[in-house]
Amino acid sequence: MSQNPRIDKVTPLAASEAKWIEIQKIDWTDQTGKARTWESASRKTRGKSGVDAVAIASILRHPSRPPSTIIVLQYRPPIGAICVEFPAGLIDANESPETAATRELKEETGYVGRVLDISPTIVADPGMSTANMQLATVEVILNEGDEEPEQHLDDGEFIERVVVPIDELYDRLKTFSKEGKIVSAKLFHWAAGFHFAKAEALSVQ
Amino acid sequence: MSQNPRIDKVTPLAASEAKWIEIQKIDWTDQTGKARTWESASRKTRGKSGVDAVAIASILRHPSRPPSTIIVLQYRPPIGAICVEFPAGLIDANESPETAATRELKEETGYVGRVLDISPTIVADPGMSTANMQLATVEVILNEGDEEPEQHLDDGEFIERVVVPIDELYDRLKTFSKEGKIVSAKLFHWAAGFHFAKAEALSVQ
Repeated sequence: MSQNPRIDKVTPLAASEAKWIEIQKIDWTDQTGKARTWESASRKTRGKSGVDAVAIASILRHPSRPPSTIIVLQYRPPIGAICVEFPAGLIDANESPETAATRELKEETGYVGRVLDISPTIVADPGMSTANMQLATVEVILNEGDEEPEQHLDDGEFIERVVVPIDELYDRLKTFSKEGKIVSAKLFHWAAGFHFAKAEALSVQ
Repeated sequence: MSQNPRIDKVTPLAASEAKWIEIQKIDWTDQTGKARTWESASRKTRGKSGVDAVAIASILRHPSRPPSTIIVLQYRPPIGAICVEFPAGLIDANESPETAATRELKEETGYVGRVLDISPTIVADPGMSTANMQLATVEVILNEGDEEPEQHLDDGEFIERVVVPIDELYDRLKTFSKEGKIVSAKLFHWAAGFHFAKAEALSVQ
């Protein structure tokens, strides 16, 4: 039986009680030599790689379908809504970002792919957080008649996957927003960059 | 006189002492009816618009130069490094996202533009934070011989602006990374989406 997830209560958390994230005061010296302070949030789970997480821009190649990508929909308690994102996950303690990318793609979507490219370490929200990640571009080669693979979700994970032709991604994200879902800024930026390139190419033809 | 900014000390911050951000415990009920908890960071500054911040993908149109965008480089204490980002800023209490976008673009870069498009509300890091934003696409029309405008920075703001042909953006971001600067995930995703569209267009020609 499935029901709509809901927020029951939000309470301030003492630093000593937090298991996953923490806030820190940073004392720093600016360009003029002036002593200043800044507040920042951090994950407490960062492993050996020095990188918190990996996200996957998958490119599905199929003989008779347009190039597509897989996005995932899941309830995210911090925003109290279904969020639309690239598949992503935290990197395990001894894992490389490449291994994490293929593992997370398989767990969240069932698809198995090959890492074409991995980004430098990039930061999600550098004004308030130390959180960092890498973006993996993963190619998935499909054959005519391949069945949709099974997800391998952890217990307690509820993730819906959607295959979207990349050409339609930007408009689909806007539609998801109108329906009350919340789109990830990273995914939206990827789609906006793609959309801008396409619009420019059309305008010079 | 300018010197390299530096981190002097990082200390855990008690919730009661934090002015800008806080961490919260979220009690929520999942899809199976099970009571669960989640930890999340929030900005304490969100105003009437319900949106924390705005970022600006600017498109500079010039009679004899390729379409370009402006990126900004600034030291970000949470990551202890120079970060490469789209111009961006917090939305003031009674401000619309559109007004914030043109104001921030003018302050950080000097350029004055027209908002072509504003994204839905999107979320920076929904697994650990409530932080949200909107992406404004702003067109700046330049004429032959226009001089570079002056920035209007706040006291204590040190922001370097760089005009980059959009066609070169993806490679330039990779170069900044190699030099030890840290690229914003949102900016990198925009450039990666643009780069992917261009590569696809070339592969079908």
